[in-house]
Amino acid sequence: MAESPYAALHDRFRRIGAVRDAEAVLHWDLATMMPKGGAQARGEQLAVLKSLRHGMLVATETGERLQAATEDVTLDPWQQANVREMRRLWAHATALREPQVEALSRAATNCEAVWRQARADSDFPRVLPYFAKLLELVREAAQAKAERLGLSPYDALLDEYEPDGRAADIDTLFADLASFLPDFLPSVVERQAQAAKPAEPEGPFPIEAQQATALRLMRSLGFEFDRGRLDVSLHPFCGGTPDDVRITTRYDEDDFRSALMGVLHETGHALYERGLPADWRGQPVGEARGMVLHESQSLLIEMQVCRSKAFLEFAAPMLREAFGGSGPAWQADNLYRHYTHVEPGFIRVDADEVTYPAHVILRYELERAMIGGDLAPADLPGAWADGMRRLLGLAPPDDRRGCLQDIHWYDGAWGYFPTYTLGAIAAAQIFAAAIKAAPQILDEIARGDFTTLLGWLRVHLHGKGSLASSRDLLIEATGKPLETTAFRAHLYRRYFGE
Amino acid sequence: MAESPYAALHDRFRRIGAVRDAEAVLHWDLATMMPKGGAQARGEQLAVLKSLRHGMLVATETGERLQAATEDVTLDPWQQANVREMRRLWAHATALREPQVEALSRAATNCEAVWRQARADSDFPRVLPYFAKLLELVREAAQAKAERLGLSPYDALLDEYEPDGRAADIDTLFADLASFLPDFLPSVVERQAQAAKPAEPEGPFPIEAQQATALRLMRSLGFEFDRGRLDVSLHPFCGGTPDDVRITTRYDEDDFRSALMGVLHETGHALYERGLPADWRGQPVGEARGMVLHESQSLLIEMQVCRSKAFLEFAAPMLREAFGGSGPAWQADNLYRHYTHVEPGFIRVDADEVTYPAHVILRYELERAMIGGDLAPADLPGAWADGMRRLLGLAPPDDRRGCLQDIHWYDGAWGYFPTYTLGAIAAAQIFAAAIKAAPQILDEIARGDFTTLLGWLRVHLHGKGSLASSRDLLIEATGKPLETTAFRAHLYRRYFGE
Repeated sequence: MAESPYAALHDRFRRIGAVRDAEAVLHWDLATMMPKGGAQARGEQLAVLKSLRHGMLVATETGERLQAATEDVTLDPWQQANVREMRRLWAHATALREPQVEALSRAATNCEAVWRQARADSDFPRVLPYFAKLLELVREAAQAKAERLGLSPYDALLDEYEPDGRAADIDTLFADLASFLPDFLPSVVERQAQAAKPAEPEGPFPIEAQQATALRLMRSLGFEFDRGRLDVSLHPFCGGTPDDVRITTRYDEDDFRSALMGVLHETGHALYERGLPADWRGQPVGEARGMVLHESQSLLIEMQVCRSKAFLEFAAPMLREAFGGSGPAWQADNLYRHYTHVEPGFIRVDADEVTYPAHVILRYELERAMIGGDLAPADLPGAWADGMRRLLGLAPPDDRRGCLQDIHWYDGAWGYFPTYTLGAIAAAQIFAAAIKAAPQILDEIARGDFTTLLGWLRVHLHGKGSLASSRDLLIEATGKPLETTAFRAHLYRRYFGE
Repeated sequence: MAESPYAALHDRFRRIGAVRDAEAVLHWDLATMMPKGGAQARGEQLAVLKSLRHGMLVATETGERLQAATEDVTLDPWQQANVREMRRLWAHATALREPQVEALSRAATNCEAVWRQARADSDFPRVLPYFAKLLELVREAAQAKAERLGLSPYDALLDEYEPDGRAADIDTLFADLASFLPDFLPSVVERQAQAAKPAEPEGPFPIEAQQATALRLMRSLGFEFDRGRLDVSLHPFCGGTPDDVRITTRYDEDDFRSALMGVLHETGHALYERGLPADWRGQPVGEARGMVLHESQSLLIEMQVCRSKAFLEFAAPMLREAFGGSGPAWQADNLYRHYTHVEPGFIRVDADEVTYPAHVILRYELERAMIGGDLAPADLPGAWADGMRRLLGLAPPDDRRGCLQDIHWYDGAWGYFPTYTLGAIAAAQIFAAAIKAAPQILDEIARGDFTTLLGWLRVHLHGKGSLASSRDLLIEATGKPLETTAFRAHLYRRYFGE
């Protein structure tokens, strides 16, 4: 019996998914376990797997079968959505010619390697030629994808990280933020300055105790340790596969707060991955919807849940026990003040939730200008400094703390940055909807019980995978497309209401 | 410019090698790090990578190019050897039809899963139908390979693990062993029984201390920790890739001896992998020659070097320090008596070097009979018990300690067992040649300096990869093909000479 085009595609994407999962494990190993001498062989392994996966995706049969499957009226809604997602992946992959893909990959690898040194030495001119070359190739790729997908070049790049994400929608949302944050920020800073400084918990904080606490809190939040691990890497991330989620953090003996909150952030990502529809493992429709929803899930756990007073009431006794702490510094209220401290700074990854959007808006403006050809690579440091002064009132003292701080562009990722702030906005909206649907969630958080919240997220988001667009998933879950109302309400409540 | 057939093959096998390396890392992760919930996804990843690798190997172009490259007179000796090894891999892979490969793989997976439970319950009848089915498929495969390679069916299976390994040669060597071991064994046992029992080092032996000592000894032996790791798994193994060698052990708080010697054994494998010719990474000619030489390298380190009095003189102070030990039990001489204790037992992996060959000879006789159709699967337990009585004077009390103890057959591996004892024989011959070439090696071992030994092995074996046959490599390194003279001399010296 001849296999249907859909069945053939299902099998092909199962194989593609398995190779991608293999790459995810190899990446995790590279960042956590691999001795440095293994780098070259690992680079080779990853490059070959990526190219095999790409080959399966762009093969002639894939396109022919997609055409046939699109017309197959016997498919159920999940299968139809699966075909739609396959088409999306296929369109992105076939938009570029093979030599273009290779040139981009090589340029990104070279630029990233030079950037590491340039950042350490705060030496932008050193990386500039590599950066300019990479940008040129990215602009060509954006143009090719734009023609293929019928989008603007920037939207074509954005679409890879956030399917159906459009700059026009981002502009509206970021304009909303710009309408209140510039006044909101100084008033928060002023209010916090008027109060006495929060007391400092005294260290050192042994790494074993930090890790044990992280594991306890992960377990409380619903992380399943027969389905995942916590390890250490230089840059925290969530990797692995939905049934074997690998999250990482890094520890500092002088400060437990950052590692701990990092773990809770990655746990949010992990719970999303873990909750993806089990029947669709390895298929495109079974994957996370996009980076906005992914970031919304980590920020919902970190910003909405774990930096709340209720959560810190639950966590404070655990922290006191782990570190042998006592006195005012270890009271939930004092910890809450630390975890909600607002202060403009140079570094995005260290930013609080009030100043974070300014970091993203700066990058969004600059990357659109670069893709549009309105900002030359050589002019980036100046434009960065201008933007920082305008948005946060700070001029970076050097490029290390300025335009060299993030890996994204130097690794070829343009169109990614906005998803952080869109994720923060979505987190507030989704959390508000969950609370509205099940108000007991707030009391449960204070008791360290996250069952209702996680159950709601599973039903309304995690379990849907890529069945619908982000927009439609969000409307189904919260009644509205993405808007800043809940985010704004959250900020006012947290910084002026409590 | 058109690529030469050789260049095209080189590139294809580079890609095949990268996929195989990726599988090796995924296997390591499975055994050391993976939470149990990840098993299904990992099985899928490994199956897909294996099938992609197989597809690249059996593709029509591979055969055509091999034909052309074989006739290319411009190739240098390494390239010629590379083509010869490519042909070997290709001949094995194309001897079986695709459905045959799949049926075998499925039958092995099923049989192995049932065997795990059958072994735990000592229930041979439970696994018998799966085992019989698997054997039937293995016999068919052996027949197909025999026709393709012009070998007997058993030799065709052996050839996969030990290229050019032939039962006729094994018969000669095993007959040599049979000519002295049956008298040698009881005389050793009697001699050891006449001495006072060695004193028992008192435990417990904390795992951290065992691990720290293992790492120190690995470092002394020349293991490079920027090129590999030591971890924990249920069954110790050496995996990973030559530039990132991953060895494992398992610890027992009541006995440090077994974990430690296991680590040293795997370190021998690791040093071989690490010393393979760096210019030929990922190419067939750059790989280890076969399981006999591989096992010879682990047994050279374990049996020839690390169970020697000289080595234990070096290691004893380290062990006393690690475990806070003192008194007679911790003297090198006493430790040496433990590490050379001889006693017939049921279990191969626990056997000493004097009784080990009997375990292997039994399996070799039985597997040849099974492949030849002279022993029916249902008759295995009886034949096993008969053989054990004849060879070691012991009847296993149950099948768990009899024919169910090893995974090999239940996982489809017939033709592997002889390589253990051939490796032990080769280890003695190679070590004797090294000592003859550089007698200072013995003094160096007592000082914990393995530089000369490792250097000699690198030059004469490790660095040759698969440039020549095992036989030719051995003749070059030791002046003779494999024979039992050195092994016999080693046993007499160790058990009667010192």
